[in-house]
Amino acid sequence: MSRFAISGVFSAAATPVNADLSPDHARFAAHCKRLLSEGCHGVALLGTTGEANSFSLTERKEILEKVIAAGVDPTALMPGTGVAAIPESIELTRHALSLGVNKIVLLPPFYYKGVSDDGLFDAYSRILEGIADDRLKVVLYHIPQMSGIALSVELVGRLVEAYPTTVVGIKESKGDFANMHALVKAYPGFAVFPGADPLMLPLLKEGGAGCITATSNLIADSLRTVFDGHADAAKAAEVETAQARIEAWRALSNSYAQIPTIKAMIGLKHGEDGWQRTRPPLVGLSDAQIAELQPQFQTLP
Amino acid sequence: MSRFAISGVFSAAATPVNADLSPDHARFAAHCKRLLSEGCHGVALLGTTGEANSFSLTERKEILEKVIAAGVDPTALMPGTGVAAIPESIELTRHALSLGVNKIVLLPPFYYKGVSDDGLFDAYSRILEGIADDRLKVVLYHIPQMSGIALSVELVGRLVEAYPTTVVGIKESKGDFANMHALVKAYPGFAVFPGADPLMLPLLKEGGAGCITATSNLIADSLRTVFDGHADAAKAAEVETAQARIEAWRALSNSYAQIPTIKAMIGLKHGEDGWQRTRPPLVGLSDAQIAELQPQFQTLP
Repeated sequence: MSRFAISGVFSAAATPVNADLSPDHARFAAHCKRLLSEGCHGVALLGTTGEANSFSLTERKEILEKVIAAGVDPTALMPGTGVAAIPESIELTRHALSLGVNKIVLLPPFYYKGVSDDGLFDAYSRILEGIADDRLKVVLYHIPQMSGIALSVELVGRLVEAYPTTVVGIKESKGDFANMHALVKAYPGFAVFPGADPLMLPLLKEGGAGCITATSNLIADSLRTVFDGHADAAKAAEVETAQARIEAWRALSNSYAQIPTIKAMIGLKHGEDGWQRTRPPLVGLSDAQIAELQPQFQTLP
Repeated sequence: MSRFAISGVFSAAATPVNADLSPDHARFAAHCKRLLSEGCHGVALLGTTGEANSFSLTERKEILEKVIAAGVDPTALMPGTGVAAIPESIELTRHALSLGVNKIVLLPPFYYKGVSDDGLFDAYSRILEGIADDRLKVVLYHIPQMSGIALSVELVGRLVEAYPTTVVGIKESKGDFANMHALVKAYPGFAVFPGADPLMLPLLKEGGAGCITATSNLIADSLRTVFDGHADAAKAAEVETAQARIEAWRALSNSYAQIPTIKAMIGLKHGEDGWQRTRPPLVGLSDAQIAELQPQFQTLP
């Protein structure tokens, strides 16, 4: 049994949309099932890669409802429910709990910048006390390059101390390995998840809990191989091969803006139309860009 | 008659909240009426100073409904209606139009950073075409230090060209005078509003349209004096005195974080309790900070 409340490989699932940019619920449910069958422990839907903040509250609720109605176990889902306004973060989380979800990824309010740790602590406290549900496990979300809000190691400690059975982990999407390492060392049993696939392996060796990543939309099996085998000397070669594959796919996903490229690559991998579409302000890859990507895509391990 | 579709002194009104942090509707309506009676041409409620993005959609709608129900002319209101998700920016704007509001300040979607002008143009286009109401006048909102999104002069030009009777102005809250000047020169008849009170006067001299500012919560009369008299040599001394007052009040409002300080100063000026409260992640001034502010406040011109 893991020493973490949450651990494993979680895919920051991309959200396919129809031509009118409404969520393509059927395709999304099929994608979530595929991710779980490929080895993901769970699906971290409605995050940054999932373009959650480009969907309305109503659409976010519907996305979650439909994927559960399609047969995905709600305890295998870890939706993002953090928005700019505290009452709505509470509303989205309570809605998720009502569907059987028991873990979420929680952005801090992200409109105001330069806010203090006291202000962020107060914001998180009001959200958690507004939810007021002991079943809930929360993964904090550190992605300052998008949210504009950095969660300091000290702030994380204050939240862990105040809500020890609820605040159980953090997604570190800045990609700052020293910060991940500091969090692992500071709070034993607290689950630190890199947001960058290649960093799962080195962090597992230091006491990391798994990953919540975008490239797992494409190669969840390799991430699972690394997760399962990282501490087993007999599997070193297998892990090394998987890690090399992760690095190659991740590198190609950075050819253009990452989220549109991940979506285009899902379409290429599975021969599915429509994945090229994104909601503005993101711009989907053009046909010319996809044509340019394709030869490199074919040579991926 | 002004050569701009919108011009004048607009107050970026602060939003008072009750002890439970719900909006204090009665006090807010009284504040809006006071701002108009002090000389504001309009009230730009539900902006950054108004902590709009810390309120839910439901609360934002209610704030607007209640202030109009209290007797404020909806055509004197210019609410912020831009949020992270396009469908909700459309919903808030249509709601405002349904109440008789005919002008808004429109943030671009602000979660994703590093997005392209094409993505921002597409986002604004989908919002405007989703609203689809010829009565609407839109002021774009450039506040990269909060939104993380800069609206380039070129992007503004594309929007003005595509929606000439709708996209009529911009609020420039970065405080970059060269950028304001470039916008004024590039698009004649397009209304450029500084977000910093002391910059209204120099920009009026260059062809600016007025201001949308926070210090006007406190000294709207002086801003109106500057607006009305800036081109009249006979009023030069009066304008100079008013401008000095604006600069002094603005400087004091930067003693601590600006929005909480503005709110505390409104409370001090009018002897009203409760203005010290803010919604997290902002932190209201402490009693000690207010006590520290008070002697300097007393000496303001």
